[in-house]
Amino acid sequence: MALAPVTLLTDFGTADGYVGEVKGVLCTQAPGVPLVDIAHDIPPQDIEAARLAVARYWRRFPPGTVHLVIVDPGVGTERAALAVASEGRFLVGPDNGVLSPSLFALDARVVRLAEPPAAAPTFHGRDLFAPVAAQLAVGAMRGLSPAVLLDTVGEPYAEAVRRRTPPPTRRGDGALVGEVLTFDRFGNAITTLVPARPLVGAAAVEMMGQRFPLVRTYGDVAPGAPLALVGSSGLVELAVRNGSAALRFGMARGQGVVLVAAGVAAS
Amino acid sequence: MALAPVTLLTDFGTADGYVGEVKGVLCTQAPGVPLVDIAHDIPPQDIEAARLAVARYWRRFPPGTVHLVIVDPGVGTERAALAVASEGRFLVGPDNGVLSPSLFALDARVVRLAEPPAAAPTFHGRDLFAPVAAQLAVGAMRGLSPAVLLDTVGEPYAEAVRRRTPPPTRRGDGALVGEVLTFDRFGNAITTLVPARPLVGAAAVEMMGQRFPLVRTYGDVAPGAPLALVGSSGLVELAVRNGSAALRFGMARGQGVVLVAAGVAAS
Amino acid sequence: MALAPVTLLTDFGTADGYVGEVKGVLCTQAPGVPLVDIAHDIPPQDIEAARLAVARYWRRFPPGTVHLVIVDPGVGTERAALAVASEGRFLVGPDNGVLSPSLFALDARVVRLAEPPAAAPTFHGRDLFAPVAAQLAVGAMRGLSPAVLLDTVGEPYAEAVRRRTPPPTRRGDGALVGEVLTFDRFGNAITTLVPARPLVGAAAVEMMGQRFPLVRTYGDVAPGAPLALVGSSGLVELAVRNGSAALRFGMARGQGVVLVAAGVAAS
Repeated sequence: MALAPVTLLTDFGTADGYVGEVKGVLCTQAPGVPLVDIAHDIPPQDIEAARLAVARYWRRFPPGTVHLVIVDPGVGTERAALAVASEGRFLVGPDNGVLSPSLFALDARVVRLAEPPAAAPTFHGRDLFAPVAAQLAVGAMRGLSPAVLLDTVGEPYAEAVRRRTPPPTRRGDGALVGEVLTFDRFGNAITTLVPARPLVGAAAVEMMGQRFPLVRTYGDVAPGAPLALVGSSGLVELAVRNGSAALRFGMARGQGVVLVAAGVAAS
Repeated sequence: MALAPVTLLTDFGTADGYVGEVKGVLCTQAPGVPLVDIAHDIPPQDIEAARLAVARYWRRFPPGTVHLVIVDPGVGTERAALAVASEGRFLVGPDNGVLSPSLFALDARVVRLAEPPAAAPTFHGRDLFAPVAAQLAVGAMRGLSPAVLLDTVGEPYAEAVRRRTPPPTRRGDGALVGEVLTFDRFGNAITTLVPARPLVGAAAVEMMGQRFPLVRTYGDVAPGAPLALVGSSGLVELAVRNGSAALRFGMARGQGVVLVAAGVAAS
Repeated sequence: MALAPVTLLTDFGTADGYVGEVKGVLCTQAPGVPLVDIAHDIPPQDIEAARLAVARYWRRFPPGTVHLVIVDPGVGTERAALAVASEGRFLVGPDNGVLSPSLFALDARVVRLAEPPAAAPTFHGRDLFAPVAAQLAVGAMRGLSPAVLLDTVGEPYAEAVRRRTPPPTRRGDGALVGEVLTFDRFGNAITTLVPARPLVGAAAVEMMGQRFPLVRTYGDVAPGAPLALVGSSGLVELAVRNGSAALRFGMARGQGVVLVAAGVAAS
């Protein structure tokens, strides 16, 4: 049977040797286990960006995969270090919310990791999280059950930080009210709005007086025109065809957005 | 026998979870096949940069390799989705020219992929291209012939977009006329000029009144001096030793360049 | 037994096809050997940044690993091309100091590589270093002894460039005097200071009149406050909690720093 990989998500960037140190530990302690880079350019210390990234990919990998998530502004403080078993996958990282997407599954189990006495207080990624990820990967390779395996690396822990995307609310007139959650590389704004799909073609998003008609895909509007669409994770995104909505409209995280039926003014 | 890899070239960047979603699909649907990152920082929607990158690497990988190329500004529109078998390798991506380098081989075969009904209209990389790449990788692992295997994923397609680097032209005085094609990270300008190698030491490139003597390598001129050389893909490049030609001379794509014999003025 | 990987550190960036060409050569000439990316965004031609990165990771990988290091401003000049066997690992790259961390081991052996006649003078990474790395990886896979294997790829070479981090000096009053070596992505300044650990809580670093108390980790000071700590490689780092020390204090490489006992003025 093919080996499940260890994946890596960090905010270390790719201009020095830190990612290399973590990978060296993994290659040494879990020989033969494939390493898969998710991304290393999470904005420094951006827990929310890491959480949203994890939400996208953690469940798409096969059972037995170990997801290592190192975005850890609180390294060396009292924040707990965690390992999670959830739907057959493992996640390892700091207790600051980055692992949240895996914590809402019915079978999710969480343990708190002990800090090895020799761990550098500024680099738990190398000295604590990577060794535990390696241990889980080796155990999964041997076919141990996730729950049993998890209990070998730490003590059950009930207080894990759970962060959630704030759900949209409904106004008196039925319009859906949400906010800008984050941006992707293309300058698309991902919002907290989750519409019923039948609304495509019959609704629009309004933000600071600007109207974004809800369409199926970018090609449904003229180049340079604003649009809204249901993105690949089910959330409404605001975009400009062949352009950057973030730059064009000077958007920021947290800005309010309203989903209204076509022809209805938002305010 | 060692497994041929699936390679990934995208313009997704490495600051979120999109690359992770694609890799999760590949790890799940083609277990055990190695993933090899080519690059994820192709400038957003830059088809030409993707085509030039593919030209560099597609043939250097072993037969059986599947090259996944996701630079896809037309996602969700009528543009076709393609798989190609060429010289024993496979390529999968949108029909916008990014796969062109593989289409000029004598044995190149192209099929059009059907869009799965449930595919997100904005993320064919995850929902269409990655599953087909996985299917091809698994088939290649089983030793199926490329042509037979290709026909299992789509219908033969004759109208694939073919983009080519514009060939240089020759002036009345014998000088070669071309243009700036693109830039690399060091600020070197890659041009469309393809000189006979014996010209090294006896020719120069002129651009907007600036002269770049054609030498063998960077070390042949003083630090800070401009130079031209035949790059590693056979095209003439304009450079500044230990500096950026693009910044120093304010170059842009499409700017005209002329290759003249030494001592001859270009204009 | 699991195969040791080939790792890659370059300054090529990840926006074009150069890294892909190198990986294609490796996949073709060392089939089945895992590739592990260390980083490709070393600042262009920054030998010192590459050397410091190599120092971090080269020894953390298992014996048999081949580290390919391509930061090579002198490509095509008379600078030698090297392969090193050191503590069971191999390193391949230009003779400009980037491989230095491996050269100080007692068992380090160095050979000079011959340039293949057909090698592109601007791309030894693809045409010289990658083929040699592949040859070493294949030999290591077959269990050849490092010393024997190394001698199959080149001639013994005694003049390899050895770069070292300049050691701190001690002032008359006992204070340790060093300099800023480099910066990480978080804006932390890594210095050349190596203190005795017991100093934590009883010392501070001074730089241009600014005082950085030596603490155990970031959380020991208030958000926004400056601090110094012993980093994960044993060197003192200057930081700002949840901020960038480099930007806040306009730091530059080579700036002088002084480690003084708490309560003692540095100048």
